[in-house]
Amino acid sequence: MKIILPDTMPLAPELPEGWEAVTVDARAEIPAEHHDAAALVVWGPSRRHLASAARDLQDLRLIQSLSAGIDAIEAAGFGDQVRIATGAGLHSKTVSEHALALLLALVRRLPEAADAQRRHTWDRALGGVQELHPEGRVTTLIGARVLVWGFGQIGQHLAPILAALGAEVRGVARSAGERAGFPVIAESAIGAELGETDVLINILPATEQTRHAVDADVLAALPDRALLINVGRGDTVDQVALKAALESGGIGGAGLDVTSPEPLPAEDPLWDAPNLIITPHGAGGRPVGADERIARNLAAFVAGQELISPAR
Amino acid sequence: MKIILPDTMPLAPELPEGWEAVTVDARAEIPAEHHDAAALVVWGPSRRHLASAARDLQDLRLIQSLSAGIDAIEAAGFGDQVRIATGAGLHSKTVSEHALALLLALVRRLPEAADAQRRHTWDRALGGVQELHPEGRVTTLIGARVLVWGFGQIGQHLAPILAALGAEVRGVARSAGERAGFPVIAESAIGAELGETDVLINILPATEQTRHAVDADVLAALPDRALLINVGRGDTVDQVALKAALESGGIGGAGLDVTSPEPLPAEDPLWDAPNLIITPHGAGGRPVGADERIARNLAAFVAGQELISPAR
Ligand SMILES: NC(=O)c1ccc[n+]([C@@H]2O[C@H](COP(=O)([O-])OP(=O)(O)OC[C@H]3O[C@@H](n4cnc5c(N)ncnc54)[C@H](OP(=O)(O)O)[C@@H]3O)[C@@H](O)[C@H]2O)c1
Ligand SMILES: NC(=O)c1ccc[n+]([C@@H]2O[C@H](COP(=O)([O-])OP(=O)(O)OC[C@H]3O[C@@H](n4cnc5c(N)ncnc54)[C@H](OP(=O)(O)O)[C@@H]3O)[C@@H](O)[C@H]2O)c1
Repeated sequence: MKIILPDTMPLAPELPEGWEAVTVDARAEIPAEHHDAAALVVWGPSRRHLASAARDLQDLRLIQSLSAGIDAIEAAGFGDQVRIATGAGLHSKTVSEHALALLLALVRRLPEAADAQRRHTWDRALGGVQELHPEGRVTTLIGARVLVWGFGQIGQHLAPILAALGAEVRGVARSAGERAGFPVIAESAIGAELGETDVLINILPATEQTRHAVDADVLAALPDRALLINVGRGDTVDQVALKAALESGGIGGAGLDVTSPEPLPAEDPLWDAPNLIITPHGAGGRPVGADERIARNLAAFVAGQELISPAR
Repeated sequence: MKIILPDTMPLAPELPEGWEAVTVDARAEIPAEHHDAAALVVWGPSRRHLASAARDLQDLRLIQSLSAGIDAIEAAGFGDQVRIATGAGLHSKTVSEHALALLLALVRRLPEAADAQRRHTWDRALGGVQELHPEGRVTTLIGARVLVWGFGQIGQHLAPILAALGAEVRGVARSAGERAGFPVIAESAIGAELGETDVLINILPATEQTRHAVDADVLAALPDRALLINVGRGDTVDQVALKAALESGGIGGAGLDVTSPEPLPAEDPLWDAPNLIITPHGAGGRPVGADERIARNLAAFVAGQELISPAR
């Protein structure tokens, strides 16, 4: 049996008896001699590559994505005989780190410090004796009320780190309960929480239900001081409403690692919104523990056992 | 008995029987009617205020600083009959948060992202599929070797947060051992560690011994990829050597919350060094738990018990 690996990162998973691995160009169509593959690992593929896989791999039964978000794979239209496992969990550490970088940069006013530095100015408003909780501004995570919308693998990894920094963390997911020791509220109840929220961290996947989850109403319900982070998917935020909220001071700032579309076109008005940090989808992009995940899921597939993070 | 409180932050400590608190202007000389005070709380004082205290308060026996660094108080020249307690610990949370903000901004290349954003450019070098540990650059704390020089209250608070982000943390202090569960090496042995260090976090106090602790030799011993953070005191870094190291690529970047002198003069060449973030001494500046500390140390003083964080 054959498993196709992408050439987009070094991989060397252990394989079950009787399996061989071949590495192909993840940006190109799949060569004819590998159309007999039963399993496919997907990482940084082009649309052509996925289209070729969906069309040409007649014996395909398992896709192991190394991305947490599998919207591109879903869009390629694989048949129902193909099981898909997401890379959820492989990006928890890296995406958490990036979310924290964006959040702390806003909290600690690093963009304003950079402006002052460019002007060779020691800006006394940014240092010296300060209030812990000045009116109308979030300048520390100590005591900050943080809502993590999309409280899956990444959110649950990030939450204890935020808590260690002194934040009061709550998750938001499709169902309420307690997860990883944190209270989780249901999405349907988010309205009641927003008014007391200092920081809203969006780690939602792109689905039909999550499109524009953060819309004008959500932004209006947040206090003026609130900060928004999005490390999920760009489509989950209404960017026109976000720009308006930033411009009117309806929220205090935002940090986006994802936008809609990507790349964000040079003429998009979002680039120049005030108190906004944009990074070009750099939070993840480097699966941690990929070989182990591929090996485990391939073994589970062969043995007819449950996959880790099955999408279907 | 009388304790003088500064007007630079709201304070209402519980006092022992028979004590009264008065609040005075911390930027001015101490009014004659309060020259009988036995205790003084210091926060954001002017030099005049400290000089007046040292000269005028003949009955003074206890100074409770709310700063961790008491160099300004030491310089004012109080007699040996005055016990001084530092505010060590009151700034651990805030300074740790700021150190992390500076470090993550460098690691996650936020200054470069800001440049690209200004140019409306989706910079593909900063996102997409990436290596976890690219040659010559520190782009994540996962697996990063972090040395925290000055492993006291702040360092020990910061260390577990860095560890939660995946870093391998070691402390450096005047004596070796294990503290708060982390290995600590002696300053005399730091030379052997530097070559393997991805991140050097300086949280040293300003003393005669720590002046220019981070000098040209230390910077040369660090790998080219290494990042330097200073949230201790500006005098502990040789800024001329630092600028040279940044310009030559001898280190990868630096984040300084403290400089020498402060404010850094507009004409100082440091402002324009590459890959450098300067914030104007804003890491701390807001003691957390001040009332409790004042109450506890005043009670201990009255009872003849040991102070928390005595400096003498
Ligand atoms: N910026 C980047 O570089 C980067 C990198 C990796 C991942 N991501 C994004 O981060 C997202 C989350 O990753 P993860 O590993 O935390 O995923 P996960 O473990 O699957 O968690 C997803 C969370 O979103 C919630 N959710 C709310 N509405 C949903 C809906 N309609 N469909 C599915 N889930 C819904 C889920 O709720 P329940 O708990 O109730 O199911 C769950 O809490 C990914 O989907 C991806 O889009 C971004
Ligand atoms: N940027 C800001 O806004 C800000 C705010 C607060 C504090 N600070 C700075 O951070 C410093 C550390 O604060 P902290 O609360 O962590 O203090 P701390 O608990 O007293 O710790 C100081 C650490 O430095 C070490 N050290 C090395 N050489 C030293 C020397 N010659 N004299 C004294 N200590 C020496 C100590 O070693 P041993 O463990 O061997 O004693 C200890 O590990 C303060 O002194 C202050 O300068 C900056």
